[in-house]
Amino acid sequence: MPLLTEAAKGVYVIAVTPFLDNGDIDWTSVDRMVDFYEEKGVTGMTILGLLGEAPKMTSEESKAIAKRVIGRAKVPVVVGVTAPGLAAMHELADSVMEMGAAGVMVAPPWTTKTDDQAYAFYTSVGDALGKTPWVLQDYPLTTNVTIAPKVIDRIVKDVPTCVMLKHEDWPGLSKITALRASSDKGETRRISILCGNGGLFLPEEMGRGADGAMTGFCYPEMMVGVVANYAKGDVERAHDIFDAYLPLVRYEQQQGIGLAARKYVLAKRGIISSAALRKPGGALSAKDVADVERLLARQAKRLAEIGA
Amino acid sequence: MPLLTEAAKGVYVIAVTPFLDNGDIDWTSVDRMVDFYEEKGVTGMTILGLLGEAPKMTSEESKAIAKRVIGRAKVPVVVGVTAPGLAAMHELADSVMEMGAAGVMVAPPWTTKTDDQAYAFYTSVGDALGKTPWVLQDYPLTTNVTIAPKVIDRIVKDVPTCVMLKHEDWPGLSKITALRASSDKGETRRISILCGNGGLFLPEEMGRGADGAMTGFCYPEMMVGVVANYAKGDVERAHDIFDAYLPLVRYEQQQGIGLAARKYVLAKRGIISSAALRKPGGALSAKDVADVERLLARQAKRLAEIGA
Amino acid sequence: MPLLTEAAKGVYVIAVTPFLDNGDIDWTSVDRMVDFYEEKGVTGMTILGLLGEAPKMTSEESKAIAKRVIGRAKVPVVVGVTAPGLAAMHELADSVMEMGAAGVMVAPPWTTKTDDQAYAFYTSVGDALGKTPWVLQDYPLTTNVTIAPKVIDRIVKDVPTCVMLKHEDWPGLSKITALRASSDKGETRRISILCGNGGLFLPEEMGRGADGAMTGFCYPEMMVGVVANYAKGDVERAHDIFDAYLPLVRYEQQQGIGLAARKYVLAKRGIISSAALRKPGGALSAKDVADVERLLARQAKRLAEIGA
Amino acid sequence: MPLLTEAAKGVYVIAVTPFLDNGDIDWTSVDRMVDFYEEKGVTGMTILGLLGEAPKMTSEESKAIAKRVIGRAKVPVVVGVTAPGLAAMHELADSVMEMGAAGVMVAPPWTTKTDDQAYAFYTSVGDALGKTPWVLQDYPLTTNVTIAPKVIDRIVKDVPTCVMLKHEDWPGLSKITALRASSDKGETRRISILCGNGGLFLPEEMGRGADGAMTGFCYPEMMVGVVANYAKGDVERAHDIFDAYLPLVRYEQQQGIGLAARKYVLAKRGIISSAALRKPGGALSAKDVADVERLLARQAKRLAEIGA
Repeated sequence: MPLLTEAAKGVYVIAVTPFLDNGDIDWTSVDRMVDFYEEKGVTGMTILGLLGEAPKMTSEESKAIAKRVIGRAKVPVVVGVTAPGLAAMHELADSVMEMGAAGVMVAPPWTTKTDDQAYAFYTSVGDALGKTPWVLQDYPLTTNVTIAPKVIDRIVKDVPTCVMLKHEDWPGLSKITALRASSDKGETRRISILCGNGGLFLPEEMGRGADGAMTGFCYPEMMVGVVANYAKGDVERAHDIFDAYLPLVRYEQQQGIGLAARKYVLAKRGIISSAALRKPGGALSAKDVADVERLLARQAKRLAEIGA
Repeated sequence: MPLLTEAAKGVYVIAVTPFLDNGDIDWTSVDRMVDFYEEKGVTGMTILGLLGEAPKMTSEESKAIAKRVIGRAKVPVVVGVTAPGLAAMHELADSVMEMGAAGVMVAPPWTTKTDDQAYAFYTSVGDALGKTPWVLQDYPLTTNVTIAPKVIDRIVKDVPTCVMLKHEDWPGLSKITALRASSDKGETRRISILCGNGGLFLPEEMGRGADGAMTGFCYPEMMVGVVANYAKGDVERAHDIFDAYLPLVRYEQQQGIGLAARKYVLAKRGIISSAALRKPGGALSAKDVADVERLLARQAKRLAEIGA
Repeated sequence: MPLLTEAAKGVYVIAVTPFLDNGDIDWTSVDRMVDFYEEKGVTGMTILGLLGEAPKMTSEESKAIAKRVIGRAKVPVVVGVTAPGLAAMHELADSVMEMGAAGVMVAPPWTTKTDDQAYAFYTSVGDALGKTPWVLQDYPLTTNVTIAPKVIDRIVKDVPTCVMLKHEDWPGLSKITALRASSDKGETRRISILCGNGGLFLPEEMGRGADGAMTGFCYPEMMVGVVANYAKGDVERAHDIFDAYLPLVRYEQQQGIGLAARKYVLAKRGIISSAALRKPGGALSAKDVADVERLLARQAKRLAEIGA
Repeated sequence: MPLLTEAAKGVYVIAVTPFLDNGDIDWTSVDRMVDFYEEKGVTGMTILGLLGEAPKMTSEESKAIAKRVIGRAKVPVVVGVTAPGLAAMHELADSVMEMGAAGVMVAPPWTTKTDDQAYAFYTSVGDALGKTPWVLQDYPLTTNVTIAPKVIDRIVKDVPTCVMLKHEDWPGLSKITALRASSDKGETRRISILCGNGGLFLPEEMGRGADGAMTGFCYPEMMVGVVANYAKGDVERAHDIFDAYLPLVRYEQQQGIGLAARKYVLAKRGIISSAALRKPGGALSAKDVADVERLLARQAKRLAEIGA
């Protein structure tokens, strides 16, 4: 499998982890999910992230999931390897790269406060990971670490294996603008920028120079459609598609219940057998289900109206 | 002016504070803004909140704003009086109630951790405020204080002057459901619940039993339309209106830049003379303006399509 | 090895993890350290906590450390098994209990906000751990979770396998008083309370009804002496010993540099071969070393004066 | 009154605010307190800080306190003017400077995340305050803002009215070392560094190049003695004095209860009439009082032994 590079584009979907109702991993659904994402046109997958319920798995399960997904997928797979120490991070990274992963992703520890601390952390990550290409996960809402654009520029300049930014700052449009200005002026290497936050600002992010999305949503075709239409210059069509899905995108943004909603829809679409989250995890109430069903019905109607 | 009661319904818009480009308060725009909100059908106004840039004003300016708005408005005015100590809170509350405010609003201090601490804080607020009716502002994203539904029930039970919840927990649909279940069963008094978060979940919140909205958006007619249609049972129409405005609602949810976008549109609509925020405050870049203009054009087109 | 019970008393020292200068685990020093702690009179040991640098180890290393310490120690060993999910926690707990651990210790996830959430988390921990006795680690400074005494009482009442509180709230003297009042009145089971925070309030904590200490310090004989003298009623002697060590206790309380100071002294005392922390970790500057040396000289002088 | 300059040295004690039991300001005690601090040898006072219960006062009370203290004190008075907006900060600063304050003190807003944000905040503070000399309050434990030494250097270089650092980072010894290295090399202006944290690391901070203390403790003679002995080169004597008071210093470090302990001792010493904190505020339990009394008795004995 080719390694991840700065040229990566498109949609790297954050994959869910399918469980049976009893909490065991549902391997049949794992395979079906991989095929489904590829059929919908994603250019890559990202696994073992927070919304893939990675922290709830044992280390053996995590590696087994990585092995299964990497073995089946025809597109590149990025694996989250964030860990409290470099030794554990290094160990998992080596392990998944041997399985054929395209690269790994690392978020900063919450103790990171100053510019120099962020820079020092990521240069030590670069040292620890050797030749493995990696994604800088910039997610202040969860990590409580804010990394200024010029610090990212310093990291990109000094650590050649940093090839991608998972952009999840919020609000973060001006950050993309600043980073692209640096590389446009030739001050730093141009890396791939894929955006998160459930795609909530995807059209505007594409307008600022993002290369695509790295996030999850129960209709990956939304991200694929927005990115493809933006890439070919049909901005209004990109927005039309986005707007049709936006009410549900927004509903999925609810912490806890959002992932339950995503799995509910994926189960309803026949991709995964059970909508269950592993414990501890949220579950939809009857009223939540009614909300989602209404949004699905309205979404189907609107998609038909715009011919999507 | 009548006092705020548990029966309050509709839209209490969070008013912006209009400034001149030099940072002085723009009194002419204050008056025009009050009239504008009333013309669009709001049932009340809330001033001196965070998004009204209250913390940037001197205490004299805050009182002057309160006096001007209360003096001009024909609808009830709620005033934010959150302060680090009960003495300052009490002083401001007495002052604005004398001016004719309908009630005041209080957020918990960030040091509140346990259930009993939240209960103790709000019972002491009740004691300090005397007969003044007040709104419990539940805004975990900013205050970092999470108040469980059963704690709100205890406060409502023991403090009769607590007449309204400004619901801004996120996600918080299940919280409304839980609170309404308590009052439906007669276990506690039914208070008014008005929802915040920029209206991002307004239709679903109405579906759970909210009485309306207390939030800001550059088109208050969105909130008025959603709440009115929900109230008369036309749920689909409420969603139609909501969906048409949603792309812009979402854009306004960006921290910092969101308020600048709101003021940009209010200035463009001729309500306020200047879109300037008082320092320190964000400003729209040229790219941000282009984003907003595109969203406005698309919104106008969509509103025309649905006849709104 | 007997299991941990509510009757546990004395000093459960938080063990450091000795590394060689190159970052490998120093097994010879591990053995020497276990022997040293026992010679100094500790009644138990706690491993794989934050100050044992557990997060920097791979899961294989963690288990190897547990195996070595449990195999060598003549006193009970408690193992930290905090993990983001119940599956991983359960797996590690089962593994170390099979090796002969006396019990495990669990801190709450930082997402815990309300009383009911804390209760729900620890009842699910109890379910997941089966018959394994466990320690509730109450450490708000690091976890950002505050658990009120009455919530601990509820947990103790409903989960019989919760046998100990590692008390690390700060300030927390009134918490011990409240918990002991509950069990004195027979409202709840009396569990063991061992105190943390580097022993900074140890004499006062003993005075409130604590059973001892579970914390680290480069002179475990300080904790042993304070606890023993308090237990036999010689309060002034307990304070004399405490005061003699207090300047160094305080110096060790500095985040990051504190653990480096502890290891520096343990190396100087001949217990561990290298004072190195595994990366990423702090190191003493020349000025820090001078500070520590001055404190050691003054401490030796003072200990001689009081005949300790 | 002369203005605050980079040459400031000694002890700027953080003054408490004396209240009567009913919560009113106790003006007689205010006067007695000012005289007491001066008799004990402080070189300045700092008022309207967090531990002076400033947030609990109305703005009129704050100004009245400032007027009374500034009017009576023979030493320079620094006034805390931290506010959510520059307008309110500017207003209070102008007001107290007219009364004769020596300078003002400003902490950063908790929204400050990156190096550039901290720099931008303090340059805008410098602009807003005009010619008023000001103190940069660096207090990460409470503000949650960490400012790297090189950012402080940038601020000092570009804002000539920044004349002092209230150093309250923890642990922060290396920060003082780094700042002094910059000014020793002539890279930046040498400003005054006074240390906080209740004096818990005062001897070591003096050893790193601090000019004194700006903090509170019920025995200001401790800070005065440590600073004076360090300044004249008698390091061991400085430590002797420090160690004698350390058990009580540590007890006062407890959040909430600590201020109550400080006021208890000041009342016992006859300086303030009532130990009451204004609501909401902690109060000592009978067990807390017993703790403090024991520490006072032991402290008196130890002071006698060392002839202090």
